[in-house]
Amino acid sequence: ISVSNPAECAALKEKFKVLWIDVAGLHETGVIEQFGALFGIDPLTLEDILHTGQRPKVEDFERYLFLSLQMLEFNRETGEISQEQLSVVLGSGWIITFQEKPGDMFDPVRHRIDSAGSKIRKHDADFLAYTLVDSVVDHYFSILEEIENRIDILDADLVATFSQESFNALNALKRELIMFRKAVWPLREIIGSVARDDFAVVGDLVEHYFRDVYDHVILVIDTVEVFREIVTSMHETWLAGVNNRMNEIMKFLTMIATIFMPLSFIAGVYGMNFKYMPELNLWWGYYAVLGLMAVIVLGFLKYYRSRRWY
Amino acid sequence: ISVSNPAECAALKEKFKVLWIDVAGLHETGVIEQFGALFGIDPLTLEDILHTGQRPKVEDFERYLFLSLQMLEFNRETGEISQEQLSVVLGSGWIITFQEKPGDMFDPVRHRIDSAGSKIRKHDADFLAYTLVDSVVDHYFSILEEIENRIDILDADLVATFSQESFNALNALKRELIMFRKAVWPLREIIGSVARDDFAVVGDLVEHYFRDVYDHVILVIDTVEVFREIVTSMHETWLAGVNNRMNEIMKFLTMIATIFMPLSFIAGVYGMNFKYMPELNLWWGYYAVLGLMAVIVLGFLKYYRSRRWY
Amino acid sequence: ISVSNPAECAALKEKFKVLWIDVAGLHETGVIEQFGALFGIDPLTLEDILHTGQRPKVEDFERYLFLSLQMLEFNRETGEISQEQLSVVLGSGWIITFQEKPGDMFDPVRHRIDSAGSKIRKHDADFLAYTLVDSVVDHYFSILEEIENRIDILDADLVATFSQESFNALNALKRELIMFRKAVWPLREIIGSVARDDFAVVGDLVEHYFRDVYDHVILVIDTVEVFREIVTSMHETWLAGVNNRMNEIMKFLTMIATIFMPLSFIAGVYGMNFKYMPELNLWWGYYAVLGLMAVIVLGFLKYYRSRRWY
Amino acid sequence: ISVSNPAECAALKEKFKVLWIDVAGLHETGVIEQFGALFGIDPLTLEDILHTGQRPKVEDFERYLFLSLQMLEFNRETGEISQEQLSVVLGSGWIITFQEKPGDMFDPVRHRIDSAGSKIRKHDADFLAYTLVDSVVDHYFSILEEIENRIDILDADLVATFSQESFNALNALKRELIMFRKAVWPLREIIGSVARDDFAVVGDLVEHYFRDVYDHVILVIDTVEVFREIVTSMHETWLAGVNNRMNEIMKFLTMIATIFMPLSFIAGVYGMNFKYMPELNLWWGYYAVLGLMAVIVLGFLKYYRSRRWY
Amino acid sequence: ISVSNPAECAALKEKFKVLWIDVAGLHETGVIEQFGALFGIDPLTLEDILHTGQRPKVEDFERYLFLSLQMLEFNRETGEISQEQLSVVLGSGWIITFQEKPGDMFDPVRHRIDSAGSKIRKHDADFLAYTLVDSVVDHYFSILEEIENRIDILDADLVATFSQESFNALNALKRELIMFRKAVWPLREIIGSVARDDFAVVGDLVEHYFRDVYDHVILVIDTVEVFREIVTSMHETWLAGVNNRMNEIMKFLTMIATIFMPLSFIAGVYGMNFKYMPELNLWWGYYAVLGLMAVIVLGFLKYYRSRRWY
Repeated sequence: ISVSNPAECAALKEKFKVLWIDVAGLHETGVIEQFGALFGIDPLTLEDILHTGQRPKVEDFERYLFLSLQMLEFNRETGEISQEQLSVVLGSGWIITFQEKPGDMFDPVRHRIDSAGSKIRKHDADFLAYTLVDSVVDHYFSILEEIENRIDILDADLVATFSQESFNALNALKRELIMFRKAVWPLREIIGSVARDDFAVVGDLVEHYFRDVYDHVILVIDTVEVFREIVTSMHETWLAGVNNRMNEIMKFLTMIATIFMPLSFIAGVYGMNFKYMPELNLWWGYYAVLGLMAVIVLGFLKYYRSRRWY
Repeated sequence: ISVSNPAECAALKEKFKVLWIDVAGLHETGVIEQFGALFGIDPLTLEDILHTGQRPKVEDFERYLFLSLQMLEFNRETGEISQEQLSVVLGSGWIITFQEKPGDMFDPVRHRIDSAGSKIRKHDADFLAYTLVDSVVDHYFSILEEIENRIDILDADLVATFSQESFNALNALKRELIMFRKAVWPLREIIGSVARDDFAVVGDLVEHYFRDVYDHVILVIDTVEVFREIVTSMHETWLAGVNNRMNEIMKFLTMIATIFMPLSFIAGVYGMNFKYMPELNLWWGYYAVLGLMAVIVLGFLKYYRSRRWY
Repeated sequence: ISVSNPAECAALKEKFKVLWIDVAGLHETGVIEQFGALFGIDPLTLEDILHTGQRPKVEDFERYLFLSLQMLEFNRETGEISQEQLSVVLGSGWIITFQEKPGDMFDPVRHRIDSAGSKIRKHDADFLAYTLVDSVVDHYFSILEEIENRIDILDADLVATFSQESFNALNALKRELIMFRKAVWPLREIIGSVARDDFAVVGDLVEHYFRDVYDHVILVIDTVEVFREIVTSMHETWLAGVNNRMNEIMKFLTMIATIFMPLSFIAGVYGMNFKYMPELNLWWGYYAVLGLMAVIVLGFLKYYRSRRWY
Repeated sequence: ISVSNPAECAALKEKFKVLWIDVAGLHETGVIEQFGALFGIDPLTLEDILHTGQRPKVEDFERYLFLSLQMLEFNRETGEISQEQLSVVLGSGWIITFQEKPGDMFDPVRHRIDSAGSKIRKHDADFLAYTLVDSVVDHYFSILEEIENRIDILDADLVATFSQESFNALNALKRELIMFRKAVWPLREIIGSVARDDFAVVGDLVEHYFRDVYDHVILVIDTVEVFREIVTSMHETWLAGVNNRMNEIMKFLTMIATIFMPLSFIAGVYGMNFKYMPELNLWWGYYAVLGLMAVIVLGFLKYYRSRRWY
Repeated sequence: ISVSNPAECAALKEKFKVLWIDVAGLHETGVIEQFGALFGIDPLTLEDILHTGQRPKVEDFERYLFLSLQMLEFNRETGEISQEQLSVVLGSGWIITFQEKPGDMFDPVRHRIDSAGSKIRKHDADFLAYTLVDSVVDHYFSILEEIENRIDILDADLVATFSQESFNALNALKRELIMFRKAVWPLREIIGSVARDDFAVVGDLVEHYFRDVYDHVILVIDTVEVFREIVTSMHETWLAGVNNRMNEIMKFLTMIATIFMPLSFIAGVYGMNFKYMPELNLWWGYYAVLGLMAVIVLGFLKYYRSRRWY
């Protein structure tokens, strides 16, 4: 149900066993303050909700539990990860979520709520909170998959070209991983705290479910670390490849230069205009010099072959 | 109110519920000692106040709480961060702050104090202490923003030029981050201690507010770390760019050299002065040689094209 | 005994003191759910069993202990490590293991069970669990040996060629070690927990044995770390070798170029067509120039020898 | 007072409230053992005193406290840091210090003792111990200042020359910092222990003073870490500078080589001795070729300008 | 006394206050099992004794304490460190040590035992255990000295040659340090545990001595870390030196090439065979060209001097 006025929620609160209000967009500060008054939310919490770009955190206010997370979205075209703050206020029997923009990853959850007899319908608000947090964390995995794809593509690309472009793409990926880690890292502590500590509004069963989310968070963090190490090793491959390619270029230049310099020198010697150069008058002199040059070329080629330069 | 004599403060102390004395400039040791005597401040604390360049710390003296921080200021022209020590002595009902120089980030706080009915007026000295510390920490964020701007500018610059200048600017930035971290890192522990431990002069409510400051400090530290990683990755980009550029230069040199060396050699051969060189007398000899040279040039070009050198 | 129907297991459960059911392949979700119902396994556990690629973990459900590990297999041809999740559900008197694919490292354990009077026969299900986990961990050592072989081969290879191929092989090895560590690292905590904490289904004696497994896990982790450091140092050797080789190439080019350039220049001078060049008419001019050239060559050679270039 | 015989100390012990014996030089093992017997010092402590090059440590022997530190001295000429072990044995009412060599940083302390009415005179032996340890730690700061000077000088030097000498100086500095850290690092724990734990011979007040020393130690360690990071970044600057300079050199070589190679080739072509080369007989041929050459030179120069090579 | 049969030991056990049995060589499993039976050693311990290459560990079995260490030996010729596992089983009144091979670092201990009135004779078996462990740890210091010698030699070598050989020697040293650290690192925990925890068979006095060994272990670990950092900085010196040398080579090549290319070009111009080249007929043309060439050479030399290339 979409409502246009916070006051209506008060009525709804009475009516249903579990009430989920999803506020998308934080422009209308007034509306949010009305919610605050209605559900007895601390001003500090409201401030945390309004100031996005916060570090994820969990805070226990006896009457309710405040939880803020970063929802991440991978933009497949730019390859950038955008973040959006999700604030969850979980009371007993009600839950309010605040997002920066409409559009989210909760549609499957909504469907499950709509379908009669689903697990979510049977449980309390804390189970719904679990489902929402779980959706956010599960979405991290889909981003990790996107990143893995990009790594695979870049990996193939890198070996093929060693271009500055592929290096820059690699570096951009590295920064996305840095941002990702910054957003996910604090969750270790936060979800762990929800799973471990006794918060009034979180039942034992749901704590158990949160332990599962905790495992997922750890797996996400581990995977990010592994990706970072892989990106670092790709970086090293790139540098090694550039170094190697430089080696190849220099070898080629050296081979050509060292072969032709002596040849040109010999040609230069017999291009001198001295009056008395006996070789010039021999009828086989020209052919002898050509032969000498051929010997030099073969000698160098053999030398380079022996050093495995080609 | 600006007073010229510490003794006047004693009278003021009696008069107001909350007394804030802001001492700017630490030259007049005598004045500071008078304050010490008046408010019963330990000699060790006075020493800590006078010796600037200390590590931030918090110390509980039962009667009062001593807190020292580094106020940071970003000089937009030189790009350097200057630090100034702020010492806060918080008793019950009074607070004294010591700064190295006049001019600070507390003007907004002063305005709020002056405006009747503000939150600060209603609360005790500990709330004022929170407000001051919060101002200092909030100012860190504005410095972080400046640094982020510099990073963005440098990032664009780097890719364009790969000059030693941009590298030096990057390195200067790195050092600023090192200094920044050194100044901010101990705050994690210090503000955490204020927020967690039961100090006599800090009420429960203000402890709660300090928990908020603590979250900000963690966010500052996280952001500094992320910036450091980004600067490191920019550093790598620079090196990679220089390596790559070297590759380009060498490729170009190699292409020119390998093409002209054989050509010059051929010209040299037919510049020899041997009496018996049959080719020289052929009327099409010159054109045949020019043709041969053209074939060589095309061959090399094709080879380089196949290796994607241009 | 191989059974085709979970229901039969119920009967078996009554019959034997210790029952080990090994389920290879996780396609038939139905079968696994039947097991779950039969042995009273929590739905969350079943989910963990079915979703492979999990982080290793241990979870205590009073009635049983759930343990999941990664079985690693080194493919000697591709040099890749493949992982397969092993889930162990240990109750009192029964144990069920779930693998992704048939074929495992447990044949020696099966033989020991079959042979009358073996230690396994005498002990309870927890001892069997220990034996299975021990087999998995022991298999890690055989993989470490394979990796050590590869390191030795690569080490010899590296010094011989400094080719991009050997670098890539090195990098592949590095990634395998990253994957290996990711799979093994959590075991430190998990096996440690089994060895230390009092789980209902694990007896004191078997806890003692698990402490031994714990020592092995630590040794595996230490060895992986040492391998990583060795691979890093091989990486540095490679880079140093490439750098050094570049030096050699440039030295060679420089020697050849600096010797022949002056010679060619002298030849060029006496190839000029000026009318008045007195040297050209001297009968010993040609020989004097040749002598001069020889002196230049010897001078350069001496210079390079003095700088130890060859 | 300088005494020649340990036995005399026994008498002195009775006479004064606080007795400080400073033993400089550890050659005469016999003398040290006499002290040991006289003041009831454990043989293990005596061994620790005699074996210099130990890790700093603190040990509580009920009757006395044993403390060993490294006194560091910066040799301004060689730029090396020399260390000397200082062992402090602190009993109630007496304190014995052992140094490796005469000459130390305690002269100011001695002066303060000599001047009547000084703080040291009023306090017990533990305060003297604090004063001595404080002197040692304060001296670290003066070394840090020397190092900072060296860093500043090197920093200017580096940018100017990028020579191997400046790199070596940088590396020497790095090693000094490694040694420094090794000597100072354990103090964090040791001084912290003195300031925190309840040792019989250290009064509450002096514990308080030691907390101050502890803060200084932390500041020293932080500063050493910052210096290490700065030296690392200077190292990177050096490498970047060398890379950049190589780039400059190669650009210059490439410009000269690519311009003159085609020119020489053209000259070579018209130096060929073919009978039928029509251009040679044109009266404007020579000038046309010179013009062609000029065009080539200008073309290359324009190309390089467009790529910002000069 | 050297015995040929474990059974004899039973008798000996009764006879002496302290019994030390040193088993060198682990081939005869039977003998070791006899010892096990005789002294009531757990099968798990026996297994640990027989499987060498274990991680050092300590285990308390009430009746006895099991301790395993790695004895390291530096082979001065190959520069390699070989390890040998030492297992110590310490009961009350008896101690058994197991080594892989005969020949060890315990001869001084044996001498001290043989000499009447020595400290070892007066104390219990735990003191002997301390003496043995202390010998092993002290031997680490002698290895560290060897490594320090090698570092000094390599350091001198490095600066002189920058050859691939010296780099490889450096890398070999690095690996030895990695192995060393792996063997020594666990001792921190193990010896610490012996010194701290209350094991039945270790008296208070000997615990005190073990605290001393603990300090030594920490010092060994610290020193290894410092060596690793020094080796890393030597590695960087090597790379910097190679880079610098490359710079020198390129400078030299560039100087020669840029000077002679223009000269050769000029010679080439006047080597052209155009009919109408007025300069060729001037009697001072040749000398003018030689003069021009000299001017060019001097110009380049001045330019390079101004850039400090030589």
